[in-house]
Amino acid sequence: MSLDAATLRKDFPILDQVVNDEALVYLDNAATTQKPTAVMDEMVNGYYYKNNANVHRGVHTLAERATVQFEAAREKVRRFIGAKETAEVLFTRGTTTSLNWIARSYGELAIQEGDEIVISYMEHHSNIIPWQQLAKSKKAVLKYIGLTADGQLDLADAEKQITAKTKIVSIAHVSNVLGVINPIEKIRDLAHAQGAVIVVDGAQSVPHMPVDVVALDVDFYCFSGHKMLGPTGIGVLYGKRAHLEQMEPVEFGGEMIDFVNLQDSTWKELPWKFEAGTPNIAGAIGLGAAVDYLEKLGMDQVEAHEQELVAYVLPKLLAIEGLTVYGPQDPSLHTGVITFNLDGLHPHDVATALDMEGVAVRAGHHCAQPLMKYLDVSATARASFYLYNTKEDADRLVEAILATKEFFGHGAF
Amino acid sequence: MSLDAATLRKDFPILDQVVNDEALVYLDNAATTQKPTAVMDEMVNGYYYKNNANVHRGVHTLAERATVQFEAAREKVRRFIGAKETAEVLFTRGTTTSLNWIARSYGELAIQEGDEIVISYMEHHSNIIPWQQLAKSKKAVLKYIGLTADGQLDLADAEKQITAKTKIVSIAHVSNVLGVINPIEKIRDLAHAQGAVIVVDGAQSVPHMPVDVVALDVDFYCFSGHKMLGPTGIGVLYGKRAHLEQMEPVEFGGEMIDFVNLQDSTWKELPWKFEAGTPNIAGAIGLGAAVDYLEKLGMDQVEAHEQELVAYVLPKLLAIEGLTVYGPQDPSLHTGVITFNLDGLHPHDVATALDMEGVAVRAGHHCAQPLMKYLDVSATARASFYLYNTKEDADRLVEAILATKEFFGHGAF
Repeated sequence: MSLDAATLRKDFPILDQVVNDEALVYLDNAATTQKPTAVMDEMVNGYYYKNNANVHRGVHTLAERATVQFEAAREKVRRFIGAKETAEVLFTRGTTTSLNWIARSYGELAIQEGDEIVISYMEHHSNIIPWQQLAKSKKAVLKYIGLTADGQLDLADAEKQITAKTKIVSIAHVSNVLGVINPIEKIRDLAHAQGAVIVVDGAQSVPHMPVDVVALDVDFYCFSGHKMLGPTGIGVLYGKRAHLEQMEPVEFGGEMIDFVNLQDSTWKELPWKFEAGTPNIAGAIGLGAAVDYLEKLGMDQVEAHEQELVAYVLPKLLAIEGLTVYGPQDPSLHTGVITFNLDGLHPHDVATALDMEGVAVRAGHHCAQPLMKYLDVSATARASFYLYNTKEDADRLVEAILATKEFFGHGAF
Repeated sequence: MSLDAATLRKDFPILDQVVNDEALVYLDNAATTQKPTAVMDEMVNGYYYKNNANVHRGVHTLAERATVQFEAAREKVRRFIGAKETAEVLFTRGTTTSLNWIARSYGELAIQEGDEIVISYMEHHSNIIPWQQLAKSKKAVLKYIGLTADGQLDLADAEKQITAKTKIVSIAHVSNVLGVINPIEKIRDLAHAQGAVIVVDGAQSVPHMPVDVVALDVDFYCFSGHKMLGPTGIGVLYGKRAHLEQMEPVEFGGEMIDFVNLQDSTWKELPWKFEAGTPNIAGAIGLGAAVDYLEKLGMDQVEAHEQELVAYVLPKLLAIEGLTVYGPQDPSLHTGVITFNLDGLHPHDVATALDMEGVAVRAGHHCAQPLMKYLDVSATARASFYLYNTKEDADRLVEAILATKEFFGHGAF
């Protein structure tokens, strides 16, 4: 394997526990990832117990240290995604807030009545509903790119949907349900050729593969800390400077202003213009530590590790009678997200049964109801792997699914 | 003293450090407070290393435990502020986000052209700019309640400013600059008599005194975790159910929906309707642990402790020649926030000089530029006490100010 996951696991104390009398196998990484001790240590001992103070406001020693540490985290994130400057890296609460801010603020600038916004059938609700709201308020049109039979973006349909009326295209880099990696460059070309911007939901990509926003030449890119070994409550909105300069802030308050008069105010320069109030300082610093951890492993290694796991487990799953895998069956088109159903069983029952075997997977609509309708299912089960998962974990998943089949139907599906 | 602060300090490892060759005296608590080991332990060992999973979505064991722990934190907050039900307790990024959401969502419902919004000259920017933006977008009128000569809300002026046209009154419970405690009940009566709602910025009150939102009978109440021993990135928006039911969510995404169709969606019930995306789970749990810590001490004891400290230090400060204290000089009208200037010295120089003595205070406009103009100063220095501060800390502040005077002017102001 590319990574020595068995050794890495020592950095993740939570994995060393027994659940329902079985050693825990955590395969719910698309929902949230576990945190290494290095991240916790940086937050608690590196920040809270040493430098904790509010940032950007104080001249005293702790405040200066906290500000340096917070802005250093921004620089780590900038370098990690290859942005040109830290002015283009905004800290938010998470991907959801990032996407909402773009829809609210860039949408306000860019969308007029009759304009088109294009997303796809495989988007997460956080990349659907903000655009629905924008379309409704502006009398704009929200359009969906269809999927191919094996769950990839239908590029022929994308060409049709993206027109001269399109102002914004917003697409997940990786589907949180299908695990499929979308050809962002091709969608970007279609968008840019029509003068539209491309927004990328990177919640499921940045944690799992090398991402360079300048090489991708996308206009906006969003992701969350907690899905990449970082703490909850922190995320990133990357935007090209030219867009962010034009945009109005979405939240207003302390530290994002130059001057506050009684009836009006002026804003600070980027990135602080968007960051009203006390930021999630420890969250940003924790995310910075997560970036350090990932960079030390190498994102190409993280990606290769997941590919190896998927290549290992996918054939075993496909060999199980009555098990349907949704999305591409070719491991190379996949991250470590595998979504499936067992004939005759509700995915909630499957997930509950797997939990009895110590295997944690998710079941439900995965915040992607339009995709569920598109797939003509009400829900699915989803196993999602990450850098600390091993082939033994994959074997445990397969065994638990077989045991579940046995339990519910004595194999008679 | 009401609390044994010297013993409590053992719970705060950060305080036991040397800054500029002097033992640290942290008096910047109005900006952010330090965190006890109990809060860190609950976040790291109680949540991240034991139960970390995404909430509300999973059937596996960790997800169930995380959900229970997260919602238990909401119940702690509910009890702490005396709200009727957890449906009225929304988790946000902090007070700034809470106030922005009210201005955005309730403002959208309640404000028409020509309506009036009333705030005061002592508000923090986070309780000014969202209302400026709302007034501008709705062609409404933003009015300010004046202050008395000693820095209290001018109630006679409040009666004049709050009229039949007033729809929203938004006031700090405690000024972050003057430390003055505002008579919320009286402002509430004036607002309610005119059919207006009252919004309270409680960022500087909830950490420092008992607060009961039902007894106060206010419509909205906002505060931040990091100013009350909790982590950064978490805050609370309390609102009466009737208001929250009427209001539209401000952010859209996962977990706040019932059904997502292609062109429209329906929302979950309260409080989840407002909480799109993965919340700051660890932040909420940390805030719950902070509430536990404060409740164990007793908020009446916390309040009494600060009152004793202010009663001890204020006369000593007032006795320093050339030192001006802004706001009420009566300790009983005060929390532990004391704002001052030294004749002939810029407050930044004062704060820098105090830092050289190991004493951390803030200098600047404290995100309250309209108040600075009202006081006719460009900036002030601010010392703010909390439960772990002692009379020795107060003495160190006074000594450091005297040393600063000596250093800059040999006492010749």
